[in-house]
Amino acid sequence: MPKSSVDLTIVGSIGIDTIETPTEKQEEILGGSASYACAAASFFTHTGMVGVVGTDFPVAFRQTWEDMSIDLKGLQVIEGKTFRWSGVYEDNMDNRRTLSTDLNVFETFSPELPEVYRDAPYLFLGNIHPALQLHVLEQIRDPKFILIDTMDLWINIDKENLIKVIGKCHMLTLNESEAQLFTGELTLNKAAQQLLKLGPEYVLIKKGGNGSMLFTQDDIFLLHAYPLDHFKDPTGAGDTFAGGLMGALAASGKTDKESIRQAMLQGSVMASFGVEEFSLERLKQLDHKTIHERVATLKEMGRI
Amino acid sequence: MPKSSVDLTIVGSIGIDTIETPTEKQEEILGGSASYACAAASFFTHTGMVGVVGTDFPVAFRQTWEDMSIDLKGLQVIEGKTFRWSGVYEDNMDNRRTLSTDLNVFETFSPELPEVYRDAPYLFLGNIHPALQLHVLEQIRDPKFILIDTMDLWINIDKENLIKVIGKCHMLTLNESEAQLFTGELTLNKAAQQLLKLGPEYVLIKKGGNGSMLFTQDDIFLLHAYPLDHFKDPTGAGDTFAGGLMGALAASGKTDKESIRQAMLQGSVMASFGVEEFSLERLKQLDHKTIHERVATLKEMGRI
Repeated sequence: MPKSSVDLTIVGSIGIDTIETPTEKQEEILGGSASYACAAASFFTHTGMVGVVGTDFPVAFRQTWEDMSIDLKGLQVIEGKTFRWSGVYEDNMDNRRTLSTDLNVFETFSPELPEVYRDAPYLFLGNIHPALQLHVLEQIRDPKFILIDTMDLWINIDKENLIKVIGKCHMLTLNESEAQLFTGELTLNKAAQQLLKLGPEYVLIKKGGNGSMLFTQDDIFLLHAYPLDHFKDPTGAGDTFAGGLMGALAASGKTDKESIRQAMLQGSVMASFGVEEFSLERLKQLDHKTIHERVATLKEMGRI
Repeated sequence: MPKSSVDLTIVGSIGIDTIETPTEKQEEILGGSASYACAAASFFTHTGMVGVVGTDFPVAFRQTWEDMSIDLKGLQVIEGKTFRWSGVYEDNMDNRRTLSTDLNVFETFSPELPEVYRDAPYLFLGNIHPALQLHVLEQIRDPKFILIDTMDLWINIDKENLIKVIGKCHMLTLNESEAQLFTGELTLNKAAQQLLKLGPEYVLIKKGGNGSMLFTQDDIFLLHAYPLDHFKDPTGAGDTFAGGLMGALAASGKTDKESIRQAMLQGSVMASFGVEEFSLERLKQLDHKTIHERVATLKEMGRI
């Protein structure tokens, strides 16, 4: 492969968010699934971002990614405004309500992979329209491991295409409530068994502060979330988890079950850092020593 | 100690329950915190039950306990009707609503420990009025380890006495929502740190299907719940957990942190069996081999 290639390609949304929690409000901060996931992955491997921003996109935000050595050859800059989202967390952070969504340049986004991304062995298809996820899959060659994320919106309005994408991926990740919505099953065990029938080898169900579960046809892996004294903003936690997971997996060069367990552990720890501050503020200040320490602590907390 | 002594005394409620879930209704079944906890503990150690029933109490229910070799010297039989409770589980089992509570003989219950229970090294104070829990504490001699459970009702109406009891126990257990209610803290870390200040060495926070967390001043132990394909009735899960934990701890004869981790694992697995059927139906049919197998599976599921 040419030297300019990446090990991991991440496709997703890039947004400018305004977020209100019970104690704080932050306006016009950097967000989006691709942004969170690339930031987390960048600690582990050479990562390329595929997404779109408008010409209003602050240069400081771009600089944040560059400081993390994220490859931006896949970033499209389109005349117009960047995607905006605003939301509020209620009921002790348990419930998120969207206040406004302005798609702007994201409305006509078509993800195009730079030639040097097409041989990347690892791909994370962040939460975007399933038709766009399919379009990405048509551009890649000989992938080693593909993770796909989705959301309730696509389950509700385009389940058909979503099922097609899932069938072409190695791992599907979704939230607890999305797994239940998708399958109509009450227990996550049964929901996961149904989702595995769609084709992926792994189904990863995220439960926020309650950890995550990795299902295969044969077994289940349970992972704790790192218990935090305080957290400020859960936005992007799932993307940070997935990005960290895929970054660590790409760094290992492997795709076996044991490597995935270890990569999930890294991803979960990255997410625990991410929610300590708004946007990428905590991730920006993170170093490998701090990550390793928390990984070790989390392992010890779960030792039996 | 005399041969007739028990290793573990369990004090709590005994009820006849009528329970409705989204798929099923069962009437007049055996329930109560002492019943669930003793049943679980009986698999590990010689357990004595302290509670009250009315003269209407079915002989078959008493036989269930005797078949489990639970010591019933502490069981009071009072002229009148047994405590009745009925409730319904809504919203995919997430929410429990009480339909009726008839205290009956439980209204004037005063727990009296038989002489041979007073030297029992382990004590589980199940969820009853804090004043009654204090009355039990006055009767015991030289206890090795005391676990206390409680509920939102007592936090709301008699926090003062509850705080007194907690200060005299080694471990406090409560649900996630009760820990938040008690302390007003959002994160369980902060809630637990506040509760530890009341005096207990350990605070055990139960999160149902999301596992449990054991806090000390120095560290946190995280335990997964066993993921079930199906479950029928979550009633008594917390008591089954606590009973299994205390039974296993009493069987170990120890009270150190490592022994508590292992005992929690046993308790958690007992609770996972308990919810598979209503009342004690699943526990009645359980054997040690089946318990050991699930313990081993749960350990493997969490291995990293």
